[in-house]
Amino acid sequence: MLGRDYPDQNCSVARALEVVGERWTLLIVRDAFLGVTRFDGFARKLGIGESVLARRLQTLCDAGVLERRPYRPGRHDYVLTARGRGLWPVVHGLLTWGDANFSPGGAPVLTRHDGCGGVLGQGSRCEECGEVVGPDDVEWRWGPGSGRPEARIPATPSGDAPRS
Amino acid sequence: MLGRDYPDQNCSVARALEVVGERWTLLIVRDAFLGVTRFDGFARKLGIGESVLARRLQTLCDAGVLERRPYRPGRHDYVLTARGRGLWPVVHGLLTWGDANFSPGGAPVLTRHDGCGGVLGQGSRCEECGEVVGPDDVEWRWGPGSGRPEARIPATPSGDAPRS
Repeated sequence: MLGRDYPDQNCSVARALEVVGERWTLLIVRDAFLGVTRFDGFARKLGIGESVLARRLQTLCDAGVLERRPYRPGRHDYVLTARGRGLWPVVHGLLTWGDANFSPGGAPVLTRHDGCGGVLGQGSRCEECGEVVGPDDVEWRWGPGSGRPEARIPATPSGDAPRS
Repeated sequence: MLGRDYPDQNCSVARALEVVGERWTLLIVRDAFLGVTRFDGFARKLGIGESVLARRLQTLCDAGVLERRPYRPGRHDYVLTARGRGLWPVVHGLLTWGDANFSPGGAPVLTRHDGCGGVLGQGSRCEECGEVVGPDDVEWRWGPGSGRPEARIPATPSGDAPRS
């Protein structure tokens, strides 16, 4: 289980980072939460080479974070498993922390509670109704730091929206 | 602000990962939450080379995640800033996710609500009293996956406890 980088780390943070500690990996997971499912969608959103992306996707499938689902013969989507969806607090925590500390022009992307419309703050808690909101009940919207009017970011398999 | 690896990523997750996306970095932050403050403590707990560690600590100081506090002339502790403490949901999220998915022998380390004694679950919420618990109110304890009796992990500047 433990990779070569963490010889003596009997620690769940270290084990988690063995799976998702490479930076692209968590950006792939972020895009999966945004609704991207296709290889070309991840490649375009992330702007990384196909061989690197293929390796990262394979690692995530091997670790049970993503699974392949055929959508036509020979083609498949990459979809978050229950295990992968368990990374929501981590991805949303990084989003909140990055917004608070490294986005002087405002959040590029807002996460709102679908339905009630409140912005999600620390701990994915809706600032309107107080509910802790999971990834199924999130609406992703362009925020003030994006340089565009606030609007829903459409969730499409190929991530057709301009790069976030 | 954006590093070479994320040319077009106007996204707070990407910006956060520029600072803490390298795996050792988040393990340093984990150990800082555990109470380690000394260079030799981080070096021993992590088992990494001094030059790598020195670079990572410098990066974290430059990014305002850690700050140096002199404890005697020419010597200093590395202490989490308010910005660094804002990573608590991310570190605890990784801990919870690693426990749930990659620790078949049980959690090596338990985080309990100091005072009430409840175990912290998803979102750092105390399973006993329901409170969302921040890093100041956490007691770190050896868990069932550590192979030792459950006991408080002493917080010492040099991380004197055996490697976690």
